Amino acid sequence: MKAIKNEKQEIKIGNKIISSDTFTVIAGPCSVESVQQMDIIFKELNVDIIRGGSFKPRTSPYDFQGLGAEALLILKDFKNRYNKPVISEIMSIEQLDLFDDIDIIQVGARNMQNFELLKTLGKIDKPILLKRGMGNTIEEFIASAEYIIANGNKKVIMCERGIRTFSNEARFTLDLACIHAIKTRTNLPIFVDPSHAAGTVELVEPLALAAVAAGCNGLIIEVHPNPNEALSDKNQQLTIEEFNKLKTKVDNVYNQVK
Amino acid sequence: MKAIKNEKQEIKIGNKIISSDTFTVIAGPCSVESVQQMDIIFKELNVDIIRGGSFKPRTSPYDFQGLGAEALLILKDFKNRYNKPVISEIMSIEQLDLFDDIDIIQVGARNMQNFELLKTLGKIDKPILLKRGMGNTIEEFIASAEYIIANGNKKVIMCERGIRTFSNEARFTLDLACIHAIKTRTNLPIFVDPSHAAGTVELVEPLALAAVAAGCNGLIIEVHPNPNEALSDKNQQLTIEEFNKLKTKVDNVYNQVK
Amino acid sequence: MKAIKNEKQEIKIGNKIISSDTFTVIAGPCSVESVQQMDIIFKELNVDIIRGGSFKPRTSPYDFQGLGAEALLILKDFKNRYNKPVISEIMSIEQLDLFDDIDIIQVGARNMQNFELLKTLGKIDKPILLKRGMGNTIEEFIASAEYIIANGNKKVIMCERGIRTFSNEARFTLDLACIHAIKTRTNLPIFVDPSHAAGTVELVEPLALAAVAAGCNGLIIEVHPNPNEALSDKNQQLTIEEFNKLKTKVDNVYNQVK
Amino acid sequence: MKAIKNEKQEIKIGNKIISSDTFTVIAGPCSVESVQQMDIIFKELNVDIIRGGSFKPRTSPYDFQGLGAEALLILKDFKNRYNKPVISEIMSIEQLDLFDDIDIIQVGARNMQNFELLKTLGKIDKPILLKRGMGNTIEEFIASAEYIIANGNKKVIMCERGIRTFSNEARFTLDLACIHAIKTRTNLPIFVDPSHAAGTVELVEPLALAAVAAGCNGLIIEVHPNPNEALSDKNQQLTIEEFNKLKTKVDNVYNQVK
Repeated sequence: MKAIKNEKQEIKIGNKIISSDTFTVIAGPCSVESVQQMDIIFKELNVDIIRGGSFKPRTSPYDFQGLGAEALLILKDFKNRYNKPVISEIMSIEQLDLFDDIDIIQVGARNMQNFELLKTLGKIDKPILLKRGMGNTIEEFIASAEYIIANGNKKVIMCERGIRTFSNEARFTLDLACIHAIKTRTNLPIFVDPSHAAGTVELVEPLALAAVAAGCNGLIIEVHPNPNEALSDKNQQLTIEEFNKLKTKVDNVYNQVK
Repeated sequence: MKAIKNEKQEIKIGNKIISSDTFTVIAGPCSVESVQQMDIIFKELNVDIIRGGSFKPRTSPYDFQGLGAEALLILKDFKNRYNKPVISEIMSIEQLDLFDDIDIIQVGARNMQNFELLKTLGKIDKPILLKRGMGNTIEEFIASAEYIIANGNKKVIMCERGIRTFSNEARFTLDLACIHAIKTRTNLPIFVDPSHAAGTVELVEPLALAAVAAGCNGLIIEVHPNPNEALSDKNQQLTIEEFNKLKTKVDNVYNQVK
Repeated sequence: MKAIKNEKQEIKIGNKIISSDTFTVIAGPCSVESVQQMDIIFKELNVDIIRGGSFKPRTSPYDFQGLGAEALLILKDFKNRYNKPVISEIMSIEQLDLFDDIDIIQVGARNMQNFELLKTLGKIDKPILLKRGMGNTIEEFIASAEYIIANGNKKVIMCERGIRTFSNEARFTLDLACIHAIKTRTNLPIFVDPSHAAGTVELVEPLALAAVAAGCNGLIIEVHPNPNEALSDKNQQLTIEEFNKLKTKVDNVYNQVK
Repeated sequence: MKAIKNEKQEIKIGNKIISSDTFTVIAGPCSVESVQQMDIIFKELNVDIIRGGSFKPRTSPYDFQGLGAEALLILKDFKNRYNKPVISEIMSIEQLDLFDDIDIIQVGARNMQNFELLKTLGKIDKPILLKRGMGNTIEEFIASAEYIIANGNKKVIMCERGIRTFSNEARFTLDLACIHAIKTRTNLPIFVDPSHAAGTVELVEPLALAAVAAGCNGLIIEVHPNPNEALSDKNQQLTIEEFNKLKTKVDNVYNQVK
């Protein structure tokens, strides 16, 4: 695991630097659903980086699968107009060309050990946000980052999003000890996704604040202009107003622990 | 589950009120080991309530089992001298008389479903700190509180201390969604024990701060004058100096989320 | 852990010897509910040892708590009339005298680390069936047996009954690797309880047969004359007819692997 | 989930029919390492179908990654000479053409939710052995099969290989309730991989026999001519002699439960 330990990663995205010393908030809808939806998001969401799902890894083949290439075009268009970096999730090597204008490529929890995808992403020069698999240990999480780094791309952002446990209060149990582990064993930034761990709106705030207090370098939060009409993850997306309130608390807690 | 929902619990301990609206820090050594040790603790530890183990539920019969009744006498003596409330863990109904002068009786994770013990504690008039079992759901945790309350004692303090998961970074995985669950489904205060979840000193701080940010009503933290010489839980006890630094951060984070 | 390894345990119950070389089936209702119920059980159930719950460790205080002392009297009466050994679960040290005529005392999963109870049972001369806690490792399971053995009572029967995992098909996930672990690290017999792991009648058979094939030394199965009217564990108790069919298959599989 | 329930799958491989009524044993080395190694395997291993890893999903990028395309050529050559069907694992869509002569394509646990791969495999006419992810529920497992079936390929063989739990005796905990679940909710055959669940040779036998007794339709077992020299999974591969002994027991148990 030489690559990870050797040098500290500073990842420049727009004017922001993501590293194990900084703090960055990513937010946006689970899925890019329409131009209208993203117009509201880019206008009203005060956040460093905008997220928006294009290809969606849905458990069932009969659920909404995302707008795919069209979603990426919408993201590109708004990104240029608003000069705001964007992140979206890749599901397969073949989709890579479509991500040319996307600032950060996300590898989802279900693909954390899709090693061929990781190797391919190791050969490009673009930041990768790598989510921890729901059934994977921290050792395996770090080893997956190493697949990217060993192939040449050192711009890896780690992201804890909850593991499968017997506890069924939240959809997944956030393993906050992961933050300290990544910080002490690697030089990579570690983000937390409280939305997918929570599964319901009311759990997003306590889990987000807990993650910040535990020392994470960023959050990725699902926000939708109208969650009730969302095509996916209806129950866990915040409204823009809810997000703004949370953002203030997040900043306040961050200022106490940075 | 009528008893739990009907009325908010305000539990007076000394001058402090423990409730779902307040915040209280309990700290002290895993085990009461000697008069000298506790002398330092009571003199130097700036904390609302002092903890000290008397009867120790050790996994192996060959490990140090605690000083038992002697530990309780030491606690009683210092408590009176310093006018500082104390908490210690009971392991069996027969020990109950020995806890007369102890302010809060703790039921450990391993006894969370020792229903005969819970029923007996339901018949006395003394606050009970009930820890969640490492393999128990939140529903079971609340039902165990109900065993105490249904028998007449409404002074129950809940305490999350981590659950068993496949993740082995920490000794147990803190299930911080438990805090929100207890707050919305019961009127009981919910504490968190970051020390037993962590298992190592360096994880105590991030987990403690995370618990505070997630909205808990108190912390119970292991502190020893000289952790290297502790007879139990050597690796997870903070020094008094480490605790003081943590306490400042805890207070700062609490002020942002209260 | 000297006691466990030193000598092989042969536990005589009636004419049967329970050891790490033999195979024994225990069956009977979750709870002793009435004389009529147990009359049918003792008359019709063709099994080595009869089980019947007296004091019941129910998650909720509002559920049926067992007939208590009365159940033990019923068991004693039938045991003498039919000359058939019986097993029942103890929940507290104070109940011990009531178990005088019970052949095997069961310690349930929820009391696996009720160390004061274990120590007390270590001082009597009677076989103890110790169930593994739902959140406990195999190391902890063996250490709990050691609490009994270190106090003088070597007649310990281990019993795997499933652990808490994220999988929710069965109530608990049987950890069948436990059988091999107990056999190689101790000289104690290892039983399996497929009923509590299953949670539903249809899963009892595959889990029971799997346990036998994996080399266990016995099964403990819930059987009720009329499961639909059972006061507890309605969904997982077999009828006597279902049990008889299963028993034939169990014997057939055992003959292939013994 | 219409596709799965509608019709029973009978999958012809050579002279064998794999279905929810039959029993088939697959065995062979973790990785195809050389012509010499596979020569021994094809000559001496008495089994329905031969397994051999080509592209290996290794946790670390620095571990042996398999012989890749060369392994598939070796398998093809021996398959034709011995007229014995073979199975190997695919890791990426781009590799698909290389699997033309392979009789069954395996999707490993780490790719169970690599949905783009599943969709592609749904468009070919070849049996797919789909392993359950270590952190996935049975519902998700079935939904992944549905991704293949909904795209047109109904020849799906399910395979339970153990889930991540806190228990660390075996590498993974076999969830044998999965067998009954797949049999009652789908018409697909369900296999079990005891080798990856076990992690050590001595656990392979009890877990294999347990799986057979619980009603599985087949086993996939790692066997190596000389496990000590294996380039991967050294500790869990059986020798051919060990496998032959196990095979006899497997057949005996199967005859009791079929």
